[in-house]
Amino acid sequence: MKQSETLIPTLREVPADADIKSHQLLLRAGFIRQTASGVYSFLPLGKRVLRKVEEIVREEMDNAGASEMFMPALQPSELWMETGRWNTFGPELMRLRDRHDREFALGATHEEIITSLIRDEVKSYKKLPLKLYQIQTKFRDEKRPRFGLLRGREFIMKDAYSFHDSFESLDTAYQKMYQAYSNIFSRCGLNFRAVIADSGAMGGKDTHEFMVLSEVGEDTIAYSDTSDYAANIEMAPVVTNYTKSSEELKEMEKVATPNQKTMQDVADFLNHSLAKGLKTLMFKVDDKLVLVVTRGDHEVNDIKLKNLFEASIVELATEEETKTAIGAGFGSLGPVNVSEGIEVVADSAVQYVSNVSCGANADGYHYVNVNPDRDFQISQYADLRFIEEGDPSPDGNGTILFAKGIEVGHVFKLGKFYAEKMGAKYLDDQGKANTMIMGCYGIGVSRTLAAIVEQYHDENGITWPTKVAPFHVHLIAINSKKEEQKQLADEVYQTLKSAGIEVLYDDRKERAGVKFADSDLVGIPYRITVGKRADEGYVEFKHRTTGEQSELHQSELLESIKKLLEV
Amino acid sequence: MKQSETLIPTLREVPADADIKSHQLLLRAGFIRQTASGVYSFLPLGKRVLRKVEEIVREEMDNAGASEMFMPALQPSELWMETGRWNTFGPELMRLRDRHDREFALGATHEEIITSLIRDEVKSYKKLPLKLYQIQTKFRDEKRPRFGLLRGREFIMKDAYSFHDSFESLDTAYQKMYQAYSNIFSRCGLNFRAVIADSGAMGGKDTHEFMVLSEVGEDTIAYSDTSDYAANIEMAPVVTNYTKSSEELKEMEKVATPNQKTMQDVADFLNHSLAKGLKTLMFKVDDKLVLVVTRGDHEVNDIKLKNLFEASIVELATEEETKTAIGAGFGSLGPVNVSEGIEVVADSAVQYVSNVSCGANADGYHYVNVNPDRDFQISQYADLRFIEEGDPSPDGNGTILFAKGIEVGHVFKLGKFYAEKMGAKYLDDQGKANTMIMGCYGIGVSRTLAAIVEQYHDENGITWPTKVAPFHVHLIAINSKKEEQKQLADEVYQTLKSAGIEVLYDDRKERAGVKFADSDLVGIPYRITVGKRADEGYVEFKHRTTGEQSELHQSELLESIKKLLEV
Repeated sequence: MKQSETLIPTLREVPADADIKSHQLLLRAGFIRQTASGVYSFLPLGKRVLRKVEEIVREEMDNAGASEMFMPALQPSELWMETGRWNTFGPELMRLRDRHDREFALGATHEEIITSLIRDEVKSYKKLPLKLYQIQTKFRDEKRPRFGLLRGREFIMKDAYSFHDSFESLDTAYQKMYQAYSNIFSRCGLNFRAVIADSGAMGGKDTHEFMVLSEVGEDTIAYSDTSDYAANIEMAPVVTNYTKSSEELKEMEKVATPNQKTMQDVADFLNHSLAKGLKTLMFKVDDKLVLVVTRGDHEVNDIKLKNLFEASIVELATEEETKTAIGAGFGSLGPVNVSEGIEVVADSAVQYVSNVSCGANADGYHYVNVNPDRDFQISQYADLRFIEEGDPSPDGNGTILFAKGIEVGHVFKLGKFYAEKMGAKYLDDQGKANTMIMGCYGIGVSRTLAAIVEQYHDENGITWPTKVAPFHVHLIAINSKKEEQKQLADEVYQTLKSAGIEVLYDDRKERAGVKFADSDLVGIPYRITVGKRADEGYVEFKHRTTGEQSELHQSELLESIKKLLEV
Repeated sequence: MKQSETLIPTLREVPADADIKSHQLLLRAGFIRQTASGVYSFLPLGKRVLRKVEEIVREEMDNAGASEMFMPALQPSELWMETGRWNTFGPELMRLRDRHDREFALGATHEEIITSLIRDEVKSYKKLPLKLYQIQTKFRDEKRPRFGLLRGREFIMKDAYSFHDSFESLDTAYQKMYQAYSNIFSRCGLNFRAVIADSGAMGGKDTHEFMVLSEVGEDTIAYSDTSDYAANIEMAPVVTNYTKSSEELKEMEKVATPNQKTMQDVADFLNHSLAKGLKTLMFKVDDKLVLVVTRGDHEVNDIKLKNLFEASIVELATEEETKTAIGAGFGSLGPVNVSEGIEVVADSAVQYVSNVSCGANADGYHYVNVNPDRDFQISQYADLRFIEEGDPSPDGNGTILFAKGIEVGHVFKLGKFYAEKMGAKYLDDQGKANTMIMGCYGIGVSRTLAAIVEQYHDENGITWPTKVAPFHVHLIAINSKKEEQKQLADEVYQTLKSAGIEVLYDDRKERAGVKFADSDLVGIPYRITVGKRADEGYVEFKHRTTGEQSELHQSELLESIKKLLEV
């Protein structure tokens, strides 16, 4: 494509309202423009990258046995009422009325549409399993759209849905999708982790988020430094092998700790490390009061607490409730001498402490030299804390590190949630009607584009990985007015184009400096510069990422590039 | 793709609410399903055809020098107010409010968005001309959605826009687009005409509609039986060379024609052909009263009348107004003895009539043996009638025939209409600000799919042209339970697939009759049936459209198909 004939409006300045690199660079390099808050136009370069990502997604979905389809954005409210989401989705769901005053949702997701379709069209186990996907614009009225393509109100998603007659069949599809997702993000050149995630209220068991590692990510991932283990920190079990120290047990004493409120206050006051204190919090677990004890350097993970009690709701008790039940406020709770009828549970690490301090259940007092079993009883020891950097990886390989991640994909075993609400049933081989079992699988396509830029840029612009780059080669004639340069550049353009190489040819009447700066910004992997030695047929060949450059003769150019692109 | 793994829900019955063949067949063959009135889901087969059409569109647009981009569906109302279309577009424009109560239009078309973008990004003549396109979902709240994909409320369009610094540059782009459109519809296998159309209120000069010939079309096309001339009937000039008959002029007489109201009534009563009477209508042309005379067998074309007077509004006078001005009602008007001050114009054919009848401007009376010039005066003879079948083609080649057409494309010279309203200016080489000149170019992509089916079907189903068929080959094992059939079919499937042939493999456990009926419905061009002679490696090869069939050995299959597909 000739640069003079297309629209690549580059900017020298960093746009004022763009806070992160991908947003800044996609604007500056002329890939996108904002039309309204959280609503973007993809300019020609942006659209080209989108299509590359979409093609990768499409190939991997097809390989995973899913069929592409295309569902509408206009979704009748009646379908959303069947699942109850017309009300529960809240203001994120954009809504409108047609000329006959019928209400529609603008597709934020398509579970209702696909479940309704399959309910009508698939009646027998013989037609299951079924995997369907689409690549499509989605609408979500985010309260605070930000970070450019990372959190928009109109964006492009691949969403897939699978339908099954058994959980085993769902497991198989889930594994295929998981593998397809890994392939997709690998092919996009991304450094990502498939992260064990919380299945939330849906009741499904397995769910993974695909997270691109990035400082600007909004989620924290716990991952192994040596294996591929990764989990949302909420979900990672702690498998630390605690050991009891050999120190001699001292005698428990009650000491005054006036005005020492936080764990750190008390540790400083008593002159010991955080780990030498016990942290005790009172929770309401489905309305039952429970004292939860962890080491002072650990944090209670309320999802684990909830799972331990198989509870619906877990929340911290108020200080008022604590005082009524225990006789002391937040800063002075402990497991020693707890009032009758209040269960005390503890994180596994607590079993291994010696001579620690804890609140005395009396305001302004702590015990020191407290020891488990001798001084207090615990009804259940369990894994109740958040994993931390330095903990062993739950898979037994390596040590846990933390990272921030951008969620670009999500695979999810929905189970019967939607099928039950919408009455999607099939007849089994005995002629009996059963509710279908479903999975859903999403990829943020436009978000992936931004995530790639977060991982691929330097101080001069974007450094696209070849497979998703808008073009393979950026061809520049330093001075298009010089006939020998123009002629050689034209020839190179034709040669490469005919060979299927994607070339952006900067034929503009701009200064060389402008062309080079724009070229670095746009970030096409290989640059060919036609300059001084044009009359001899020599051009300069440069790799955008490494900066490596060499002189090549026109005659060897095509072969070199083909080799590099593995065309 | 294995048919057992995808969703192709065929129907034996014709759906009740589907009136035309494309709607019926796309439903019956499992290509689409309705989600709401005028809103459809494309099932896997439908999506495959869509993608084929889109790829053809994309290639031809790229060849025409246009760059693909992607604009949002959510369009701020402010932009639509700039052009006034927020009010003038009416209820067809779907509208919604976001959570902050800001108003948006759902993209019915993108002139406002693209003009706003180019106004901001292009400041110099150096960056013109510019051609941009997108393939995207559009929303129009049709009052009466009908005919399946032919008139929906959510549909897929390719829309392109060009920006220029001169009308010559617009002409060049227009020609390229015109050629690209011809290529696109040819490659889709369509029998179509590029039809001269009315440019309406926009003031542009050239505009062509691309019409697929079809009985179900809503427009009438006048086309030449020998040349490629075609025009919307409103636009076709009449170039008939009328000749005066040699019959002797008779004496004019006034005769009573009691209760004879229509032209046909009078002709029957007076016992002559329709052409032997004059039809006289009174029009209000920008509030001036004008009598318009045509031959009795001709129809006044009010667009031509409007152009003759360079008027803004042309409408028929009411009978009341006629009586007041002329003294007679509708059935008895004529050009003889017209009240002072009323201009009388006539279609050119009137000049050549002899001894005709006409109303006597007195209710219940006509004149017979009326002759022009002798008995009445005409201020202007001009081409004022609709062209008719049998008229000579305006380009001088052949005779006009009529056909009904489905509009699948439209190329339009917008001129400065939008750029002026939105202030899209560029600096010319003198540094002077000028308003940009625009063109726009649309293709109904999903409508094209339906138009193809209107032209390609028989009594058993669809007969896709190869280039847009969902698959190249439909592979059927008559009895998948027979090991030798299953094995040969599996082998053929793998062989063809590996060679890049798109194969739908009917591996379902259905009766052969069901498979064949479904196969005819779906309409894939080539069918391979593995049956009785499977053990010898022989299959049956059948062409869907011609019904031609032959036996082929497995070993010669790939080459035969490759030749047919010109892969």
